[in-house]
Amino acid sequence: MHLKTVINIIAILLVIVALFMIFPALWALYYGEKSCFVVFLKVIISVIISCGIVFFATKKNKENNLSTRDGFLLVSLSWVLASLIGALPFYLSGSIPSFTDAFFETMSGFTTTGASILTNIEALPKSMLFWRSLTHWLGGMGIVVLTVAILPLLGIGGLQLIKAEAPGPTVDKITPRIGETAKYLWLIYVGFSVLETILLLFGGMNLFDALTHTFGTMATGGFSTKNTSVAHFNSAYIDYVITIFMILAGINFTLHYKLITGNFKDLIKDSELKAYLTIFAVSTLLLTYDLTKNHFDNFWHGLRYGSFQAATILTTTGYATFDYEKWPAMSRTVLFLLMFIGGCSGSTGGGIKVIRIFTLFKQALIEMRYLIRPKGIFTLRLSGNVVKKDIVYAISGFFFLYIAIVLTVALLVSLEDVDILTSVSSALATVGNIGPGFGRIGPTENYAFYSDFSKWVLSFAMMIGRLEIYTVLVIFTPYFWKK
Amino acid sequence: MHLKTVINIIAILLVIVALFMIFPALWALYYGEKSCFVVFLKVIISVIISCGIVFFATKKNKENNLSTRDGFLLVSLSWVLASLIGALPFYLSGSIPSFTDAFFETMSGFTTTGASILTNIEALPKSMLFWRSLTHWLGGMGIVVLTVAILPLLGIGGLQLIKAEAPGPTVDKITPRIGETAKYLWLIYVGFSVLETILLLFGGMNLFDALTHTFGTMATGGFSTKNTSVAHFNSAYIDYVITIFMILAGINFTLHYKLITGNFKDLIKDSELKAYLTIFAVSTLLLTYDLTKNHFDNFWHGLRYGSFQAATILTTTGYATFDYEKWPAMSRTVLFLLMFIGGCSGSTGGGIKVIRIFTLFKQALIEMRYLIRPKGIFTLRLSGNVVKKDIVYAISGFFFLYIAIVLTVALLVSLEDVDILTSVSSALATVGNIGPGFGRIGPTENYAFYSDFSKWVLSFAMMIGRLEIYTVLVIFTPYFWKK
Repeated sequence: MHLKTVINIIAILLVIVALFMIFPALWALYYGEKSCFVVFLKVIISVIISCGIVFFATKKNKENNLSTRDGFLLVSLSWVLASLIGALPFYLSGSIPSFTDAFFETMSGFTTTGASILTNIEALPKSMLFWRSLTHWLGGMGIVVLTVAILPLLGIGGLQLIKAEAPGPTVDKITPRIGETAKYLWLIYVGFSVLETILLLFGGMNLFDALTHTFGTMATGGFSTKNTSVAHFNSAYIDYVITIFMILAGINFTLHYKLITGNFKDLIKDSELKAYLTIFAVSTLLLTYDLTKNHFDNFWHGLRYGSFQAATILTTTGYATFDYEKWPAMSRTVLFLLMFIGGCSGSTGGGIKVIRIFTLFKQALIEMRYLIRPKGIFTLRLSGNVVKKDIVYAISGFFFLYIAIVLTVALLVSLEDVDILTSVSSALATVGNIGPGFGRIGPTENYAFYSDFSKWVLSFAMMIGRLEIYTVLVIFTPYFWKK
Repeated sequence: MHLKTVINIIAILLVIVALFMIFPALWALYYGEKSCFVVFLKVIISVIISCGIVFFATKKNKENNLSTRDGFLLVSLSWVLASLIGALPFYLSGSIPSFTDAFFETMSGFTTTGASILTNIEALPKSMLFWRSLTHWLGGMGIVVLTVAILPLLGIGGLQLIKAEAPGPTVDKITPRIGETAKYLWLIYVGFSVLETILLLFGGMNLFDALTHTFGTMATGGFSTKNTSVAHFNSAYIDYVITIFMILAGINFTLHYKLITGNFKDLIKDSELKAYLTIFAVSTLLLTYDLTKNHFDNFWHGLRYGSFQAATILTTTGYATFDYEKWPAMSRTVLFLLMFIGGCSGSTGGGIKVIRIFTLFKQALIEMRYLIRPKGIFTLRLSGNVVKKDIVYAISGFFFLYIAIVLTVALLVSLEDVDILTSVSSALATVGNIGPGFGRIGPTENYAFYSDFSKWVLSFAMMIGRLEIYTVLVIFTPYFWKK
């Protein structure tokens, strides 16, 4: 274990997080929120000073080669400590008086979940709302780099597939070093963000709303600055812009890179992309049909609200334009099923991920062929490439653990008296980084009613889900700490 | 494909099913239900004649070596045709006026599910209620032989483990031929049934109730002859007798054989048995605690109702002694989680099965060790024996398919306007062969309100779940029908 190096890197990360607080501080100045400005300034200065000291104290003799164990520790600690520091402005300014609540909200931000404990969002100072949305954007940035560049190296739950998916010279182009990869992906992320902001400005949003809603979209987070979420703007144009960018944010970012560099061949044969778009199309179709027939009596309303809601749940964003709990049963069940899928690997989307579900489906079909012809030889192919059995194995293990964790979280929050639909969908919505669910945490409700104990459990659930489960759980095995 | 041989064997099976109708016919005589007696007689005679003709027509040139494909077809067709014939008495006597309902009820019987469409059970003629319970008992008998002797040969979803679990001379003793195995297991099954009947008679039940409730227990089915299920008898003694026999019925029957022949060594080191009893003990503890503290204010009530309900859901029986939907949230969630587990392999219990859950848990832990030390060598052991990776692989695939089927069934029944909790728990309760669930299919309710379409879907779900999913699904792949 190279604890020194781990601490050293985390110190840098925390300083970066603190430096990003300059933006909400500027909004505080703009909106005349003096006390908020002071809070941000205090936090920025104290973080820089304390992390600076830690940085220089751990700088000497630090080793450059991190082991996989260091990797797990580094990633998990980063999210916890960033959330602790990120919660400070909310707590110190009194915007969120309970520290548990402030931590829950920040973890929900950095994990791009979008689950909120706020009952009246618009009552918060603008600068605080900006910081809240910015945690999404930063978290999303971290996740893209993490899943594309770092987790595959650690070999987590079949994520090696991302590497495997881009064979040939492209690999060298896009991942010569983590730093280089990060640069390209961030450029795409920033580029999309700028584009969405401009399109939202065209739709009549002011800069503040356009930026914060872009943050929530590109990170597939879901925090809005309005109590009624995106429904507030009541604009078909804005709904469709956000729908499109949610879908874009749910696509593997290496594919965006390929698109931009004109590598259409890899794009077209990508199995995950095809499956993802098919799932989106089919669920939009089902929702549009059901809503047109049994709810709105209007095809365009059915399409608009149906496609938005399919996108927001599939990509695990969690924005709302309608209270889907009032929709007919089939629509609700379609959304419930989408909660089990999630975005593409290497996107900002959470959940189990399309590639895993797709691989498991293909594997189930192959298993049936083996039953019929036990001595046959059948290979599983994704995007035209043969997938090694070990990877499918890791994916199966991931799937089981995912369901087991969802059910465990549901059991833990049921210790306080909540109904099964609420407890199970709370677990699905946090482990899957979605945000809203069903029952008492529907799209027009929030997580405020939960006890402090449950809030900590759910915060932990968001982190476990966001970091692909294994990253966090490994640390709690005695084996991890053996020499 | 040896269709002739398959049809020939099924003809024999159907004649056996018809011959068992002699027992309810005798009860019809005893209770003076003349029209029912006539119906049973008609069905028995017509089945024997028609199946007799089919039997002799397919006898010639039949081949003795069945392929695995024949096996899948044989098993699946047996359950469908037995249910079609078994439904005739209900339908022809007018006890269940809709054929869809009669088929649903009979499939629920033969699959030992216990899901019912009857709103007033006690209104049915006694002889019909006896036949209804007898379908459980026959189905349970079929399942024990199927999972211990036939499915392992077909290599379904890791069930090879049962073979692997009993190495050394014991294997030769218990499975020299399917016929021999069947004989031993049936003797145990009949022996337990006689014992339970006697114990229930001691508890004040009459012979009719003692027999029918024994059928429901030993098959982990759950059909009762009373509207309020086992609660009707309001006896702690009867509750505990049934609890114990449900737990016994949920244990691998080869272990009972070992117990009787004094082979305690294998019994003690059996991983699945230990896991099963631990799950039962822990959930009883949780339920007793929660119920004593938050519901009954009485430890003995908490223990009695808690242990009964834990046993009835874990073993997938489905009897009720209390409306658990009125219980506090934690108790309800514990029961909901138990719906994902099920009995032991080689028992009459349904669900995913303890051995699969246990294997996947162990595998998840090993996967974590690999993440920490990618070059380490770790083996998965069950009952002291190393488990081959291929078997774990098959189990993972089974788990995914199980969840996928549950969610698909939930989607299909949600086409009519039912809430998510009802649709999801209907799917869990039928695929898992449990019977009652939550929402509109709680322990005091039934499946009567569903449309015909949903009833066929759920009948199919019961069959898929009962036959370990692959057995049925394989038949629907085009690959199965290729030469």
